[in-house]
Amino acid sequence: MITAKARAVDGPDKPFRAAEIKRRDLDSHDVLIEIKYAGICHSDIHTAHGEWGPVHYPLVPGHEIAGIVTAVGPSVTKYKVGDRAGVGCMVDSCGECENCRNGEEQYCLKGKVDTYAGVDKYGEPTQGGYSTHIVVPEDFVLRIPDSIALDDAAPLLCAGITTYSPLNHWGAGPGKKVAVVGMGGLGHMAVQIAHAMGAEVTVLSQTLKKKDDGLKLGADNYYATNDPETFGKLAGYFDLIINTVSAKIDLNAYLGLLALDGSLVNVGAPAEPLSLNVFNLIGHRRSFAGSMIGGIRETQEMLDFCAKHNIVPKIEVISANQIDEAYERVLASDVKYRFVIDISTM
Amino acid sequence: MITAKARAVDGPDKPFRAAEIKRRDLDSHDVLIEIKYAGICHSDIHTAHGEWGPVHYPLVPGHEIAGIVTAVGPSVTKYKVGDRAGVGCMVDSCGECENCRNGEEQYCLKGKVDTYAGVDKYGEPTQGGYSTHIVVPEDFVLRIPDSIALDDAAPLLCAGITTYSPLNHWGAGPGKKVAVVGMGGLGHMAVQIAHAMGAEVTVLSQTLKKKDDGLKLGADNYYATNDPETFGKLAGYFDLIINTVSAKIDLNAYLGLLALDGSLVNVGAPAEPLSLNVFNLIGHRRSFAGSMIGGIRETQEMLDFCAKHNIVPKIEVISANQIDEAYERVLASDVKYRFVIDISTM
Repeated sequence: MITAKARAVDGPDKPFRAAEIKRRDLDSHDVLIEIKYAGICHSDIHTAHGEWGPVHYPLVPGHEIAGIVTAVGPSVTKYKVGDRAGVGCMVDSCGECENCRNGEEQYCLKGKVDTYAGVDKYGEPTQGGYSTHIVVPEDFVLRIPDSIALDDAAPLLCAGITTYSPLNHWGAGPGKKVAVVGMGGLGHMAVQIAHAMGAEVTVLSQTLKKKDDGLKLGADNYYATNDPETFGKLAGYFDLIINTVSAKIDLNAYLGLLALDGSLVNVGAPAEPLSLNVFNLIGHRRSFAGSMIGGIRETQEMLDFCAKHNIVPKIEVISANQIDEAYERVLASDVKYRFVIDISTM
Repeated sequence: MITAKARAVDGPDKPFRAAEIKRRDLDSHDVLIEIKYAGICHSDIHTAHGEWGPVHYPLVPGHEIAGIVTAVGPSVTKYKVGDRAGVGCMVDSCGECENCRNGEEQYCLKGKVDTYAGVDKYGEPTQGGYSTHIVVPEDFVLRIPDSIALDDAAPLLCAGITTYSPLNHWGAGPGKKVAVVGMGGLGHMAVQIAHAMGAEVTVLSQTLKKKDDGLKLGADNYYATNDPETFGKLAGYFDLIINTVSAKIDLNAYLGLLALDGSLVNVGAPAEPLSLNVFNLIGHRRSFAGSMIGGIRETQEMLDFCAKHNIVPKIEVISANQIDEAYERVLASDVKYRFVIDISTM
């Protein structure tokens, strides 16, 4: 067993504390990664607070992981010691179902193994990236391109792929009008990626506070959704809307912004059900859809795409002692645009 | 002006009565059709009863129209006297917007002209097919293949295209698992069309009462939705579900039947909004969508497809005096599967 330093929570209302966790000895296809940086995703907060169902505490969150390979199992062929490596939201899947065989491991029919708050094939609860080391099967390790700094790389593993995958799947590109709802950790990635794909990009944010940032990141237009004129002005305009906001939105208002055959794609989900007027779909053959992260092959494609187009998140690097404070600031929308923990401070 | 005999209603609760209506003199591109048969669509009932908003009475419903061309305007090139002709749910559109130019006149951005309860470009209220004659621009007239009897052809103009279009658009075909929700006027067409397209077809009906008919029409499987085991047994099974039921359904239960990238497509709409749990979409990249009839080019394609594959509706031909009774029977689901009015009885 390998001992790793970590930051863990002991319950929904508990602060983070220093902890030691065990990582398994390397199996034949396992890779040991020394973690350098771990991003803080809103999902970490939901899970740590027990808002998405019962959690096995103590819990070590973190699924935006960037580091260096420090050991490999005897059968590993894809990685060697010293390689720059990333881990995202999942660390295993069945590998045998139709979806896994098609490279869509995130939709594994037997259930993917989440990077934390999951249960691995050994029956052990998984623990995430707020720690100094992690052991992951090589098939679930990503290669971080040399041109992307490790702190910048971390948020790509969730915020990057969660937005890249639907933009890719629904064909964002030249001639397509894409809206990004929400200008936060996911939204500010979606803007850059959609712009690099060649689409016309519009940000729909509650206010115009982050407009300058949005335009600098590649948005062509920026509208405030608290301005009642926005929804009339943009009626029937978009081919694709990526909704990065997990809070309950007025679905019918946003569906009204779609052109013929347009899709509104949620990458987050509110806890309560949404109300939908079917006439809004029928009248223009619109779709309301959802998307969850991306497969491993597509995640690698996203990293290479970001390297090629110089796409990086805007981050604020914090020390391990600042996690609680960072959570509060995320909940207050006081972050531009992603916190990344410097694991060397652990 | 041309005088036509018709059956009209004078208000939401009024019975049908014999009426005379005026049809305009032929404009240069107009076609005069002597109507032989008109189908009764559930939309006729909703509209006649004023359930879909205010209606200009007296109203002559009917948008499943089959007949013979008896005169043409001086510039008509597509039809000549004696041709077998059909008219569906729309009789005009702007012809200039992006959707019209793409042959999707049903989604005309300026609003299509409905066959009845609409307003035409002369500012006159439109009146539908429960009448002996209709005048329609040639671009909105369909050619009925010789092998399809005119009484059988009528329901294809709405029930046929309303189901053909989404099956076509969402790629029903070999290797695809398609479910049809509801075994009524639309459902029994969807079964035949999806089967002819090469898909595996499953009917999801409230009970097994119409199972024999469903299997004879081409369904591979038939399940009762009032059997609680159905939804467990078929979880994650379908690539495409065509929902022909306008009543409120448990959307989340039906979404659960979709495989990765599956779509649930509504061709009808309940008056009240539906409640949707977004996790049901995200977990398998599912879509909930809507579709409305089809364009003129696609409607002709559908007619030719039905002729080629010997697809016809199951109909019960009635006389003009039986319309009120037929409406009551439609509302009681007591029809297999479409009423068609013999206009010669008018």
